[in-house]
Amino acid sequence: MNLEQFPSKLLERAVSETAKLPGVGRKSALRLVLHLLRKDASQTHALADSLLRLRDEVKFCTCCHNISDNAMCEICSSDHRDRSTICVVENVQNVMAIEATGQYEGLYHVLGGVISPMDGIGPSDLQIESLLERIREGGVGEVIFALNPTMEGDTTNFYISRRIAALGLPEGAVRLSVLARGICVGDDLEYTDEVTLGRSIIDRVSLRA
Amino acid sequence: MNLEQFPSKLLERAVSETAKLPGVGRKSALRLVLHLLRKDASQTHALADSLLRLRDEVKFCTCCHNISDNAMCEICSSDHRDRSTICVVENVQNVMAIEATGQYEGLYHVLGGVISPMDGIGPSDLQIESLLERIREGGVGEVIFALNPTMEGDTTNFYISRRIAALGLPEGAVRLSVLARGICVGDDLEYTDEVTLGRSIIDRVSLRA
Repeated sequence: MNLEQFPSKLLERAVSETAKLPGVGRKSALRLVLHLLRKDASQTHALADSLLRLRDEVKFCTCCHNISDNAMCEICSSDHRDRSTICVVENVQNVMAIEATGQYEGLYHVLGGVISPMDGIGPSDLQIESLLERIREGGVGEVIFALNPTMEGDTTNFYISRRIAALGLPEGAVRLSVLARGICVGDDLEYTDEVTLGRSIIDRVSLRA
Repeated sequence: MNLEQFPSKLLERAVSETAKLPGVGRKSALRLVLHLLRKDASQTHALADSLLRLRDEVKFCTCCHNISDNAMCEICSSDHRDRSTICVVENVQNVMAIEATGQYEGLYHVLGGVISPMDGIGPSDLQIESLLERIREGGVGEVIFALNPTMEGDTTNFYISRRIAALGLPEGAVRLSVLARGICVGDDLEYTDEVTLGRSIIDRVSLRA
Protein backbone atom coordinates (compact mmCIF):
# COMPACT_ATOMS: atom_id res chain seq x y z
CA MET A 1 0.00 0.00 0.00
CA ASN A 2 1.40 3.37 -1.02
CA LEU A 3 1.18 5.53 2.07
CA GLU A 4 1.91 8.83 0.37
CA GLN A 5 -1.65 9.45 -0.80
CA PHE A 6 -3.38 10.52 2.38
CA PRO A 7 -6.95 11.77 2.09
CA SER A 8 -6.24 14.32 4.84
CA LYS A 9 -3.26 16.50 5.77
CA LEU A 10 -4.17 16.15 9.47
CA LEU A 11 -4.07 12.38 9.12
CA GLU A 12 -0.78 12.50 7.24
CA ARG A 13 0.86 14.67 9.90
CA ALA A 14 -0.37 12.48 12.77
CA VAL A 15 0.95 9.38 10.97
CA SER A 16 4.31 11.05 10.27
CA GLU A 17 4.77 12.06 13.91
CA THR A 18 3.68 8.67 15.23
CA ALA A 19 6.00 6.89 12.80
CA LYS A 20 8.98 8.70 14.38
CA LEU A 21 8.60 6.43 17.42
CA PRO A 22 11.10 3.56 17.48
CA GLY A 23 9.82 0.36 15.88
CA VAL A 24 6.67 2.03 14.51
CA GLY A 25 6.48 2.05 10.70
CA ARG A 26 4.06 4.13 8.66
CA LYS A 27 1.58 1.29 8.34
CA SER A 28 1.51 0.68 12.09
CA ALA A 29 1.30 4.42 12.69
CA LEU A 30 -1.76 4.65 10.43
CA ARG A 31 -3.38 1.77 12.32
CA LEU A 32 -2.71 3.41 15.71
CA VAL A 33 -3.97 6.81 14.57
CA LEU A 34 -7.16 5.42 13.00
CA HIS A 35 -7.76 3.49 16.23
CA LEU A 36 -7.72 6.79 18.13
CA LEU A 37 -10.18 8.25 15.60
CA ARG A 38 -12.63 5.40 16.26
CA LYS A 39 -12.35 5.77 20.04
CA ASP A 40 -13.74 8.57 22.16
CA ALA A 41 -11.85 11.87 21.89
CA SER A 42 -11.12 11.69 25.64
CA GLN A 43 -8.67 8.83 25.02
CA THR A 44 -6.63 10.92 22.60
CA HIS A 45 -6.69 13.85 25.01
CA ALA A 46 -5.56 11.65 27.92
CA LEU A 47 -2.74 10.18 25.83
CA ALA A 48 -1.51 13.57 24.59
CA ASP A 49 -1.78 15.13 28.04
CA SER A 50 0.11 12.29 29.74
CA LEU A 51 2.96 12.51 27.23
CA LEU A 52 3.19 16.30 27.47
CA ARG A 53 3.11 16.31 31.26
CA LEU A 54 5.75 13.59 31.48
CA ARG A 55 8.04 15.37 29.02
CA ASP A 56 7.63 18.81 30.57
CA GLU A 57 7.38 17.99 34.27
CA VAL A 58 9.46 14.88 34.89
CA LYS A 59 12.51 15.34 37.09
CA PHE A 60 15.66 13.35 37.55
CA CYS A 61 16.73 12.54 41.11
CA THR A 62 19.58 14.88 42.10
CA CYS A 63 21.27 11.98 43.87
CA CYS A 64 20.92 8.87 41.68
CA HIS A 65 19.57 10.45 38.42
CA ASN A 66 16.64 8.04 38.25
CA ILE A 67 13.36 9.40 36.85
CA SER A 68 11.39 10.97 39.67
CA ASP A 69 8.39 13.17 40.41
CA ASN A 70 10.39 15.08 43.04
CA ALA A 71 13.88 16.52 43.39
CA MET A 72 14.93 13.33 45.18
CA CYS A 73 13.47 9.96 44.17
CA GLU A 74 11.52 7.66 46.46
CA ILE A 75 14.38 5.21 46.80
CA CYS A 76 17.01 7.83 47.71
CA SER A 77 14.67 9.50 50.19
CA SER A 78 13.51 6.24 51.81
CA ASP A 79 14.49 5.44 55.41
CA HIS A 80 14.30 1.72 54.70
CA ARG A 81 17.17 1.42 52.24
CA ASP A 82 20.77 0.49 52.95
CA ARG A 83 22.58 3.76 52.18
CA SER A 84 26.04 2.14 52.19
CA THR A 85 25.44 0.19 48.97
CA ILE A 86 25.18 1.74 45.51
CA CYS A 87 24.07 -0.30 42.50
CA VAL A 88 25.34 1.24 39.23
CA VAL A 89 22.88 0.73 36.35
CA GLU A 90 22.54 1.99 32.79
CA ASN A 91 18.95 3.25 32.80
CA VAL A 92 15.60 3.44 34.53
CA GLN A 93 14.37 0.13 33.07
CA ASN A 94 17.25 -1.60 34.84
CA VAL A 95 16.31 0.02 38.16
CA MET A 96 12.76 -1.30 37.65
CA ALA A 97 14.06 -4.77 36.74
CA ILE A 98 16.22 -5.00 39.88
CA GLU A 99 13.50 -3.55 42.11
CA ALA A 100 11.13 -6.21 40.77
CA THR A 101 13.42 -8.98 42.07
CA GLY A 102 12.87 -7.80 45.65
CA GLN A 103 16.48 -8.86 46.37
CA TYR A 104 18.11 -5.45 46.67
CA GLU A 105 17.81 -3.02 49.55
CA GLY A 106 20.46 -0.43 48.67
CA LEU A 107 20.51 2.71 46.55
CA TYR A 108 21.09 3.13 42.81
CA HIS A 109 23.12 5.30 40.48
CA VAL A 110 21.76 5.67 36.95
CA LEU A 111 24.59 6.36 34.49
CA GLY A 112 22.28 7.21 31.57
CA GLY A 113 24.16 4.89 29.20
CA VAL A 114 27.45 3.06 28.86
CA ILE A 115 30.78 4.05 27.31
CA SER A 116 30.47 3.27 23.60
CA PRO A 117 33.01 4.88 21.23
CA MET A 118 31.05 3.42 18.28
CA ASP A 119 28.03 5.53 19.29
CA GLY A 120 30.17 8.51 20.27
CA ILE A 121 29.37 8.10 23.97
CA GLY A 122 32.33 8.87 26.23
CA PRO A 123 32.68 9.01 30.03
CA SER A 124 31.77 12.71 30.10
CA ASP A 125 28.31 11.91 28.64
CA LEU A 126 27.50 9.71 31.63
CA GLN A 127 26.80 10.42 35.29
CA ILE A 128 30.23 9.21 36.41
CA GLU A 129 31.54 12.33 38.18
CA SER A 130 28.48 12.45 40.43
CA LEU A 131 29.00 8.77 41.32
CA LEU A 132 32.62 9.50 42.29
CA GLU A 133 31.37 12.45 44.32
CA ARG A 134 28.94 10.20 46.21
CA ILE A 135 31.78 7.78 47.00
CA ARG A 136 34.15 10.60 47.97
CA GLU A 137 31.59 11.92 50.45
CA GLY A 138 31.99 8.68 52.41
CA GLY A 139 29.57 6.16 53.88
CA VAL A 140 29.66 3.90 50.82
CA GLY A 141 30.86 0.36 51.61
CA GLU A 142 30.04 -1.38 48.32
CA VAL A 143 29.48 -0.47 44.70
CA ILE A 144 27.70 -3.13 42.66
CA PHE A 145 28.12 -2.88 38.89
CA ALA A 146 24.87 -4.02 37.26
CA LEU A 147 25.47 -3.00 33.66
CA ASN A 148 24.57 -5.26 30.76
CA PRO A 149 27.13 -8.04 30.25
CA THR A 150 28.38 -6.62 26.96
CA MET A 151 31.67 -5.22 25.71
CA GLU A 152 30.42 -1.69 26.43
CA GLY A 153 29.16 -2.64 29.89
CA ASP A 154 32.46 -4.29 30.81
CA THR A 155 34.44 -1.32 29.48
CA THR A 156 32.34 1.02 31.60
CA ASN A 157 32.81 -1.19 34.69
CA PHE A 158 36.56 -1.15 34.13
CA TYR A 159 36.72 2.61 33.55
CA ILE A 160 34.71 3.45 36.65
CA SER A 161 36.59 0.97 38.84
CA ARG A 162 39.89 2.62 37.77
CA ARG A 163 38.46 6.06 38.58
CA ILE A 164 37.34 4.81 42.02
CA ALA A 165 40.79 3.35 42.67
CA ALA A 166 42.29 6.73 41.73
CA LEU A 167 40.29 8.39 44.52
CA GLY A 168 42.93 7.06 46.92
CA LEU A 169 40.50 5.76 49.51
CA PRO A 170 41.85 3.49 52.29
CA GLU A 171 42.48 -0.09 51.13
CA GLY A 172 39.27 -2.14 51.33
CA ALA A 173 37.08 0.84 52.22
CA VAL A 174 34.82 0.34 49.20
CA ARG A 175 34.15 -3.16 47.90
CA LEU A 176 33.49 -3.34 44.16
CA SER A 177 31.36 -6.17 42.82
CA VAL A 178 29.61 -7.19 39.63
CA LEU A 179 26.48 -9.25 38.99
CA ALA A 180 27.17 -13.01 38.81
CA ARG A 181 27.34 -14.36 35.28
CA GLY A 182 26.33 -17.92 34.63
CA ILE A 183 23.64 -20.15 33.28
CA CYS A 184 20.07 -18.84 33.47
CA VAL A 185 17.63 -20.47 35.87
CA GLY A 186 15.56 -22.90 33.82
CA ASP A 187 18.06 -22.84 30.95
CA ASP A 188 19.33 -25.87 29.01
CA LEU A 189 23.11 -26.41 29.09
CA GLU A 190 22.99 -27.70 25.53
CA TYR A 191 21.87 -24.29 24.29
CA THR A 192 23.95 -22.09 26.61
CA ASP A 193 26.73 -20.26 24.76
CA GLU A 194 30.24 -21.48 25.58
CA VAL A 195 31.45 -18.16 27.04
CA THR A 196 28.63 -18.12 29.59
CA LEU A 197 29.00 -21.84 30.36
CA GLY A 198 32.78 -21.47 30.76
CA ARG A 199 32.25 -18.49 33.07
CA SER A 200 29.77 -20.49 35.15
CA ILE A 201 32.40 -23.22 35.69
CA ILE A 202 35.10 -20.71 36.70
CA ASP A 203 32.71 -18.86 39.03
CA ARG A 204 31.12 -22.02 40.48
CA VAL A 205 29.79 -21.68 44.03
CA SER A 206 29.58 -24.14 46.95
CA LEU A 207 26.47 -26.29 46.88
CA ARG A 208 24.14 -25.28 49.68
CA ALA A 209 22.81 -28.53 51.09
CA MET B 1 10.22 -7.22 34.69
CA ASN B 2 7.45 -6.15 37.01
CA LEU B 3 5.97 -3.02 35.49
CA GLU B 4 3.95 -1.99 38.49
CA GLN B 5 6.82 -0.33 40.37
CA PHE B 6 7.26 2.90 38.48
CA PRO B 7 9.68 5.46 39.90
CA SER B 8 7.35 8.24 38.76
CA LYS B 9 3.58 8.69 38.60
CA LEU B 10 3.96 10.80 35.45
CA LEU B 11 5.86 7.96 33.80
CA GLU B 12 3.30 5.41 34.94
CA ARG B 13 0.39 7.42 33.53
CA ALA B 14 2.13 7.99 30.19
CA VAL B 15 2.88 4.26 29.94
CA SER B 16 -0.71 3.33 30.85
CA GLU B 17 -2.19 5.66 28.22
CA THR B 18 0.27 4.53 25.54
CA ALA B 19 -0.40 0.87 26.33
CA LYS B 20 -4.09 1.42 25.44
CA LEU B 21 -3.08 1.58 21.78
CA PRO B 22 -3.74 -1.67 19.89
CA GLY B 23 -0.76 -4.03 19.81
CA VAL B 24 1.24 -1.97 22.31
CA GLY B 25 2.01 -3.79 25.56
CA ARG B 26 3.29 -2.15 28.74
CA LYS B 27 6.91 -3.00 27.95
CA SER B 28 6.69 -1.50 24.46
CA ALA B 29 4.85 1.52 25.89
CA LEU B 30 7.67 2.09 28.41
CA ARG B 31 10.23 1.89 25.60
CA LEU B 32 8.29 4.40 23.45
CA VAL B 33 7.80 6.82 26.34
CA LEU B 34 11.45 6.68 27.46
CA HIS B 35 12.44 7.30 23.84
CA LEU B 36 10.42 10.53 23.90
CA LEU B 37 12.15 11.51 27.16
CA ARG B 38 15.55 11.14 25.53
CA LYS B 39 14.56 13.17 22.48
CA ASP B 40 13.98 16.89 22.31
CA ALA B 41 10.74 18.08 23.94
CA SER B 42 9.64 19.49 20.57
CA GLN B 43 9.13 15.95 19.26
CA THR B 44 6.69 15.11 22.05
CA HIS B 45 4.88 18.41 21.52
CA ALA B 46 4.60 17.78 17.76
CA LEU B 47 3.29 14.26 18.34
CA ALA B 48 0.70 15.34 20.93
CA ASP B 49 -0.39 18.32 18.84
CA SER B 50 -0.79 16.25 15.66
CA LEU B 51 -2.94 13.66 17.47
CA LEU B 52 -5.10 16.30 19.16
CA ARG B 53 -5.62 18.27 15.96
CA LEU B 54 -6.49 15.14 13.99
CA ARG B 55 -8.95 13.96 16.63
CA ASP B 56 -10.60 17.35 17.13
CA GLU B 57 -10.55 18.78 13.62
CA VAL B 58 -10.81 15.86 11.20
CA LYS B 59 -13.96 15.71 9.12
CA PHE B 60 -15.66 12.96 7.24
CA CYS B 61 -16.71 13.65 3.66
CA THR B 62 -20.46 14.32 3.59
CA CYS B 63 -20.70 12.34 0.35
CA CYS B 64 -18.47 9.25 0.67
CA HIS B 65 -17.62 9.38 4.45
CA ASN B 66 -13.89 9.15 3.78
CA ILE B 67 -11.60 11.06 6.17
CA SER B 68 -11.19 14.59 4.88
CA ASP B 69 -9.89 18.02 5.82
CA ASN B 70 -12.96 19.65 4.26
CA ALA B 71 -16.70 19.02 4.19
CA MET B 72 -16.24 17.19 0.89
CA CYS B 73 -13.12 15.10 0.25
CA GLU B 74 -10.65 15.70 -2.59
CA ILE B 75 -11.90 12.70 -4.55
CA CYS B 76 -15.60 13.60 -4.38
CA SER B 77 -14.86 17.24 -5.27
CA SER B 78 -12.49 16.42 -8.13
CA ASP B 79 -13.46 17.18 -11.74
CA HIS B 80 -11.30 14.35 -13.02
CA ARG B 81 -13.18 11.41 -11.50
CA ASP B 82 -15.85 9.28 -13.11
CA ARG B 83 -18.93 10.24 -11.07
CA SER B 84 -21.02 7.36 -12.42
CA THR B 85 -19.03 4.65 -10.60
CA ILE B 86 -19.04 4.09 -6.83
CA CYS B 87 -16.59 1.72 -5.17
CA VAL B 88 -17.92 0.47 -1.81
CA VAL B 89 -15.12 -0.08 0.74
CA GLU B 90 -14.90 -0.84 4.44
CA ASN B 91 -12.52 1.88 5.61
CA VAL B 92 -10.07 4.63 4.72
CA GLN B 93 -7.11 2.23 4.45
CA ASN B 94 -8.93 0.44 1.65
CA VAL B 95 -9.51 3.72 -0.19
CA MET B 96 -5.75 4.39 0.08
CA ALA B 97 -4.93 0.86 -1.11
CA ILE B 98 -7.15 1.18 -4.20
CA GLU B 99 -5.93 4.72 -4.94
CA ALA B 100 -2.36 3.40 -4.81
CA THR B 101 -3.09 0.97 -7.66
CA GLY B 102 -3.79 3.89 -10.00
CA GLN B 103 -6.41 1.67 -11.69
CA TYR B 104 -9.58 3.35 -10.44
CA GLU B 105 -11.04 6.65 -11.62
CA GLY B 106 -14.44 6.63 -9.93
CA LEU B 107 -15.76 7.70 -6.53
CA TYR B 108 -15.88 5.79 -3.25
CA HIS B 109 -18.32 5.04 -0.48
CA VAL B 110 -16.79 4.21 2.92
CA LEU B 111 -19.13 1.98 4.94
CA GLY B 112 -17.15 2.26 8.17
CA GLY B 113 -17.18 -1.50 8.72
CA VAL B 114 -18.95 -4.65 7.58
CA ILE B 115 -22.01 -6.47 8.90
CA SER B 116 -20.77 -8.74 11.68
CA PRO B 117 -23.32 -10.15 14.12
CA MET B 118 -20.46 -11.66 16.17
CA ASP B 119 -19.15 -8.14 16.86
CA GLY B 120 -22.65 -6.68 17.23
CA ILE B 121 -22.37 -4.66 14.02
CA GLY B 122 -25.62 -4.50 12.07
CA PRO B 123 -26.61 -2.65 8.87
CA SER B 124 -27.72 0.41 10.85
CA ASP B 125 -24.16 0.89 12.19
CA LEU B 126 -22.85 1.32 8.64
CA GLN B 127 -23.20 4.06 6.01
CA ILE B 128 -25.66 2.03 3.93
CA GLU B 129 -28.64 4.41 3.84
CA SER B 130 -26.49 7.21 2.47
CA LEU B 131 -25.19 4.87 -0.25
CA LEU B 132 -28.77 3.99 -1.24
CA GLU B 133 -29.55 7.72 -1.26
CA ARG B 134 -26.63 8.37 -3.64
CA ILE B 135 -27.92 5.65 -5.98
CA ARG B 136 -31.52 6.87 -5.72
CA GLU B 137 -30.43 10.36 -6.75
CA GLY B 138 -29.43 8.91 -10.12
CA GLY B 139 -26.34 9.16 -12.30
CA VAL B 140 -24.78 5.99 -10.89
CA GLY B 141 -24.12 3.34 -13.54
CA GLU B 142 -22.01 0.89 -11.55
CA VAL B 143 -21.43 -0.06 -7.93
CA ILE B 144 -18.22 -2.02 -7.31
CA PHE B 145 -18.10 -3.98 -4.06
CA ALA B 146 -14.51 -3.93 -2.79
CA LEU B 147 -14.97 -5.36 0.71
CA ASN B 148 -12.59 -7.92 2.14
CA PRO B 149 -13.25 -11.43 0.75
CA THR B 150 -14.51 -12.77 4.07
CA MET B 151 -17.81 -14.13 5.36
CA GLU B 152 -18.66 -10.68 6.75
CA GLY B 153 -17.66 -8.93 3.53
CA ASP B 154 -19.76 -11.30 1.42
CA THR B 155 -22.73 -10.93 3.78
CA THR B 156 -22.50 -7.17 3.49
CA ASN B 157 -22.26 -7.37 -0.32
CA PHE B 158 -25.36 -9.54 -0.38
CA TYR B 159 -27.33 -7.32 2.01
CA ILE B 160 -26.54 -4.11 0.12
CA SER B 161 -27.21 -5.70 -3.30
CA ARG B 162 -30.66 -6.79 -2.04
CA ARG B 163 -31.35 -3.27 -0.76
CA ILE B 164 -30.31 -1.80 -4.13
CA ALA B 165 -32.59 -4.25 -5.94
CA ALA B 166 -35.44 -3.16 -3.64
CA LEU B 167 -35.04 0.45 -4.84
CA GLY B 168 -36.98 -0.62 -7.94
CA LEU B 169 -34.67 1.06 -10.45
CA PRO B 170 -35.10 0.21 -14.18
CA GLU B 171 -33.63 -3.19 -15.10
CA GLY B 172 -29.89 -2.84 -15.83
CA ALA B 173 -29.71 0.80 -14.74
CA VAL B 174 -27.08 0.06 -12.12
CA ARG B 175 -24.53 -2.68 -12.72
CA LEU B 176 -23.26 -4.38 -9.54
CA SER B 177 -19.80 -5.91 -9.56
CA VAL B 178 -17.30 -7.36 -7.10
CA LEU B 179 -13.49 -7.50 -7.17
CA ALA B 180 -12.11 -10.52 -9.03
CA ARG B 181 -10.98 -13.36 -6.78
CA GLY B 182 -8.20 -15.63 -7.88
CA ILE B 183 -4.56 -16.45 -7.49
CA CYS B 184 -2.26 -13.61 -6.45
CA VAL B 185 0.28 -12.27 -8.93
CA GLY B 186 3.61 -13.96 -8.12
CA ASP B 187 1.90 -16.66 -6.05
CA ASP B 188 2.73 -20.36 -6.09
CA LEU B 189 -0.23 -22.65 -7.04
CA GLU B 190 1.10 -25.28 -4.63
CA TYR B 191 0.47 -22.98 -1.69
CA THR B 192 -2.75 -21.34 -2.87
CA ASP B 193 -5.72 -22.42 -0.77
CA GLU B 194 -8.22 -24.65 -2.59
CA VAL B 195 -11.17 -22.25 -2.34
CA THR B 196 -9.23 -19.48 -4.06
CA LEU B 197 -7.75 -21.85 -6.64
CA GLY B 198 -11.20 -23.32 -7.35
CA ARG B 199 -12.64 -19.85 -7.73
CA SER B 200 -9.85 -18.88 -10.13
CA ILE B 201 -10.77 -21.86 -12.36
CA ILE B 202 -14.49 -21.02 -12.37
CA ASP B 203 -13.79 -17.32 -13.05
CA ARG B 204 -11.05 -17.96 -15.63
CA VAL B 205 -10.65 -15.27 -18.30
CA SER B 206 -9.66 -15.40 -21.98
CA LEU B 207 -5.92 -15.34 -22.54
CA ARG B 208 -4.88 -12.06 -24.09
CA ALA B 209 -2.27 -12.91 -26.70
